[in-house]
Amino acid sequence: MDEWLVYLSGEIHTNWREEIEAGTEDADLPIVLTGPVTNHVFSDDCGIAILGKEEKSFWKDRKGAQLNAIRAKTLIEQADIVIVRFGNQYKQWNAAFDAGYAAALGKPLIIMHDPELTHPLKEVDAAALAVAETVEQIVDILRYVIRGELKPMSAVSAAE
Amino acid sequence: MDEWLVYLSGEIHTNWREEIEAGTEDADLPIVLTGPVTNHVFSDDCGIAILGKEEKSFWKDRKGAQLNAIRAKTLIEQADIVIVRFGNQYKQWNAAFDAGYAAALGKPLIIMHDPELTHPLKEVDAAALAVAETVEQIVDILRYVIRGELKPMSAVSAAE
Amino acid sequence: MDEWLVYLSGEIHTNWREEIEAGTEDADLPIVLTGPVTNHVFSDDCGIAILGKEEKSFWKDRKGAQLNAIRAKTLIEQADIVIVRFGNQYKQWNAAFDAGYAAALGKPLIIMHDPELTHPLKEVDAAALAVAETVEQIVDILRYVIRGELKPMSAVSAAE
Amino acid sequence: MDEWLVYLSGEIHTNWREEIEAGTEDADLPIVLTGPVTNHVFSDDCGIAILGKEEKSFWKDRKGAQLNAIRAKTLIEQADIVIVRFGNQYKQWNAAFDAGYAAALGKPLIIMHDPELTHPLKEVDAAALAVAETVEQIVDILRYVIRGELKPMSAVSAAE
Amino acid sequence: MDEWLVYLSGEIHTNWREEIEAGTEDADLPIVLTGPVTNHVFSDDCGIAILGKEEKSFWKDRKGAQLNAIRAKTLIEQADIVIVRFGNQYKQWNAAFDAGYAAALGKPLIIMHDPELTHPLKEVDAAALAVAETVEQIVDILRYVIRGELKPMSAVSAAE
Amino acid sequence: MDEWLVYLSGEIHTNWREEIEAGTEDADLPIVLTGPVTNHVFSDDCGIAILGKEEKSFWKDRKGAQLNAIRAKTLIEQADIVIVRFGNQYKQWNAAFDAGYAAALGKPLIIMHDPELTHPLKEVDAAALAVAETVEQIVDILRYVIRGELKPMSAVSAAE
Amino acid sequence: MDEWLVYLSGEIHTNWREEIEAGTEDADLPIVLTGPVTNHVFSDDCGIAILGKEEKSFWKDRKGAQLNAIRAKTLIEQADIVIVRFGNQYKQWNAAFDAGYAAALGKPLIIMHDPELTHPLKEVDAAALAVAETVEQIVDILRYVIRGELKPMSAVSAAE
Amino acid sequence: MDEWLVYLSGEIHTNWREEIEAGTEDADLPIVLTGPVTNHVFSDDCGIAILGKEEKSFWKDRKGAQLNAIRAKTLIEQADIVIVRFGNQYKQWNAAFDAGYAAALGKPLIIMHDPELTHPLKEVDAAALAVAETVEQIVDILRYVIRGELKPMSAVSAAE
Repeated sequence: MDEWLVYLSGEIHTNWREEIEAGTEDADLPIVLTGPVTNHVFSDDCGIAILGKEEKSFWKDRKGAQLNAIRAKTLIEQADIVIVRFGNQYKQWNAAFDAGYAAALGKPLIIMHDPELTHPLKEVDAAALAVAETVEQIVDILRYVIRGELKPMSAVSAAE
Repeated sequence: MDEWLVYLSGEIHTNWREEIEAGTEDADLPIVLTGPVTNHVFSDDCGIAILGKEEKSFWKDRKGAQLNAIRAKTLIEQADIVIVRFGNQYKQWNAAFDAGYAAALGKPLIIMHDPELTHPLKEVDAAALAVAETVEQIVDILRYVIRGELKPMSAVSAAE
Repeated sequence: MDEWLVYLSGEIHTNWREEIEAGTEDADLPIVLTGPVTNHVFSDDCGIAILGKEEKSFWKDRKGAQLNAIRAKTLIEQADIVIVRFGNQYKQWNAAFDAGYAAALGKPLIIMHDPELTHPLKEVDAAALAVAETVEQIVDILRYVIRGELKPMSAVSAAE
Repeated sequence: MDEWLVYLSGEIHTNWREEIEAGTEDADLPIVLTGPVTNHVFSDDCGIAILGKEEKSFWKDRKGAQLNAIRAKTLIEQADIVIVRFGNQYKQWNAAFDAGYAAALGKPLIIMHDPELTHPLKEVDAAALAVAETVEQIVDILRYVIRGELKPMSAVSAAE
Repeated sequence: MDEWLVYLSGEIHTNWREEIEAGTEDADLPIVLTGPVTNHVFSDDCGIAILGKEEKSFWKDRKGAQLNAIRAKTLIEQADIVIVRFGNQYKQWNAAFDAGYAAALGKPLIIMHDPELTHPLKEVDAAALAVAETVEQIVDILRYVIRGELKPMSAVSAAE
Repeated sequence: MDEWLVYLSGEIHTNWREEIEAGTEDADLPIVLTGPVTNHVFSDDCGIAILGKEEKSFWKDRKGAQLNAIRAKTLIEQADIVIVRFGNQYKQWNAAFDAGYAAALGKPLIIMHDPELTHPLKEVDAAALAVAETVEQIVDILRYVIRGELKPMSAVSAAE
Repeated sequence: MDEWLVYLSGEIHTNWREEIEAGTEDADLPIVLTGPVTNHVFSDDCGIAILGKEEKSFWKDRKGAQLNAIRAKTLIEQADIVIVRFGNQYKQWNAAFDAGYAAALGKPLIIMHDPELTHPLKEVDAAALAVAETVEQIVDILRYVIRGELKPMSAVSAAE
Repeated sequence: MDEWLVYLSGEIHTNWREEIEAGTEDADLPIVLTGPVTNHVFSDDCGIAILGKEEKSFWKDRKGAQLNAIRAKTLIEQADIVIVRFGNQYKQWNAAFDAGYAAALGKPLIIMHDPELTHPLKEVDAAALAVAETVEQIVDILRYVIRGELKPMSAVSAAE
């Protein structure tokens, strides 16, 4: 296995994907990161932009969501690991949907969110092999899982 | 196939499950309805009540959510049809998780919610074979799917 | 195995389903026959009748076809044998779709059509374990497959 | 994932495959296009040409169709995306069969046809994540799904 | 699990199936025995008897073998245990084919043959969870597997 | 779903299976309990008792273990829930093997052991949806999962 | 798909594998041919040569056959196409076993044998997408399936 | 297939993995060896080192074991062959768990242990295609399976 395919699902309003990319590049990990289209306007409008306008927002949304599903379904099914981040705002039901989808496929699942979301996310977390709060933890997990390395400092603090 | 197994996931604060039960019994449909434990306190506390208390809410929630997962996983996998209702309040990430789980298993999925949730639920709806707003529609769908019957009035109005 | 589940897909303008039912009942075969909703108007209108009208015929058709898919998908996946009949008229793309769907699931497939359709149906026939022309042949196949019985006459003529 | 495998099923009497190839090459998309043998005579005659003549057209067709199935089955199962085009003529049952086959395998499905075929193709369309009318739309979908790009003009018109 | 489904594949020239049936009935085991059509003439002629004569024996055989496959495929896939007996005569390639088919499905496989066939059957035996020589052993295996009982005598001799 | 199939794997030197049976019968739960043959001598000797003696203990063990595998494999694959108990003595590698087997099949897994085994069993526990110490907890889990009921006392203590 | 993996099972006493290799190299087909170990002595003795001698031929054969199964199982599961040749001599039950194994996995299957084996191989042939008699036909099939090319002469003769 | 992926599970207190690596490199076999993180402290502490300390050893172990599971699950599912070594000390339940996991996935399984562990490992061995005692045997198996080669000496001794 030359490269690990890691799908990054969920929040699109912060730059956590770029931070993970920077962190895993710094660590020189053999990872290919994939994820949804994160341009919010494109993601909402792709269906009608390509396939024609709709009167009803229901069908506009359906057309767009189904195009996004072509990408998400394909990349999640090919992923070795699926990471889903929940931000503190918004419904983010698509993130939870992706987590359920990945869980049913038996993909190793890592969930990332702030501690105050612990209770509402408990069923999602319960399907995960790791629940992280920071990008640094995500990078550390990937480094450990792929290379078997722990950062000196954390190893030390663990041994305390 | 003597009976259709239908799993009802999602909202636990209204009596939509009882209404579906009443409606499908009125219609004399050969259906067995299943679903999660809907006693909210039990659902939250089951883990520590049975397996012992925890200092951290994270582990309390984990213990409970994993017990609930034994039930949900088993019943969703056995279901012929999965229906997921989203209420207008709350995060309901477990509902979206169940929808994703069922979708990945290839279960026919029916989503039920009010029209104002159309946009945030678009990815979930896009995986569904029907999106309904009312219990009456759900019962009509089940009657049609199982018995091939349309209610006279709706047939008439459709033919207009 | 107490009963064989047999799904009858395809043509809805002749009474071949009733004839198979009569034939298998005469032969006292332990079979449960299933199939799509055969009321053509209902099949076309179910979506808008239950879930509300649509301006565009595309979405009207989509809504109805997806309700029909809940039934077809469930019953084909549960079937032991899938029989698909093509009439001499109409596009009947749903019949060929069902045949492909059943083939990918590994279901034993029996195709029924008149000889003049042999060439256009060659890819569909090539996925089948039997290609029949008459209801009598279908009943004979089911009797043989389930009970191991050949009708005296055909056994005789075979031995000529 | 370096390249997306896209299987192009269906109509063989127009040059839509070449147009998609040209369009995706123009867009420099990392795609490998596959499909059936599109030489009509070869497709019909391959069985008897290689494995010997047959008296009956039924067996001639069977031999050829089974050789074609070796190719179609293998390439559809390996495809990331399956695109099926229906022309306005002919039965094209093999196209609908491929669509059903791909649907049962859970492949993201894109259907392409003229609007007048909407009603007879409704069950096939209902299994698709996109229904397109033109090659340009197909290329736009692939560009969006793979690169997350919308063409400026369509983005503009969508934002109107 | 109320009943164990046991498929008996292979030799049709001795009455080993009847002996297993008698033995498991004597032992009052909750077993349903299934198997191929064992009427040799019917098994050979079913295709042409039902679906019409063929000039070439190749197609006669194909038609019949495909009808037999409807039965074998369905019953092997539903079986809990597959038992395959090889006699000392004949090619019996269908028996070895069934063994391979069952092995790929992960069915527990019991092979029955005389010791002199050990070497040519070594690959088949290597996929089996038991290799028996006599009907009595088969019945003893089923009694042990289903009820956890060993016959007194064999228990004694084992303890020697 | 009329009855839940629960496979009880692992320790055979205490009567925990009988206690679970008594507890679930007291609670009137719709459960069918299955498990390996628990007669230790039979379990060790079945292979040679039925299929003939062996010089080498390796082959004696192989013969017996493969017969036991017919039972275990079949019943684990049919189980809705798999419960594995580790006692404080013995290697019990078959119990850990069954846990891994059930985990790979996606079966909900409950592990039962004393607290002092927490560290050596950590990989096994990590695949489980519940880790219990007592039979009473197991019965409480099954009652909650199947009936949604918590025992009054534990509900009270949880609410403290 | 850069290369097609083709597994060649069956007869090891003629040089048909080398002929196919020569033919597909001549045709410059992007194929990787795999197959069992064809050194007969090695194939028989590998188990005891590596893992130690056995008194009983049954266990000698078991040890060897299981080592061969590591190779066969892995390579058949990775194959795109499985070709099985039956010679006119020997039982060749392993060839029929491989054919059944490949069929249950849904692999496109090509069977090769002389016409006089048609009747005893009818169940095996019935699972195949092509039944060939000569190496030339096999190479022609692979050329057609992979490149869509028919040899001029055969195309001509087919058109007669 | 360019390279065989071989997962080495089990014992981490001897250098058997390095010996297999040296042996397969000497033999120039196209193998990629994978396995768990073998730094015992890291393996135990990774969870709390990365994701934060825990009061209870149960949750410390859970956190770590679940991180290790991300690696093990991914690499075992990608492996062509899984080799599990049991040392003479320790419980090694994770090794038996991996063996069960690999067996349920249908991976060819090779078990390695000293002869005195034959009886307690009998259920694990019964699921294996080879049971070896030494690293040399493992390397010989891989050489034979991948290249079809037997070492001269062993071939000679086998032929005695």
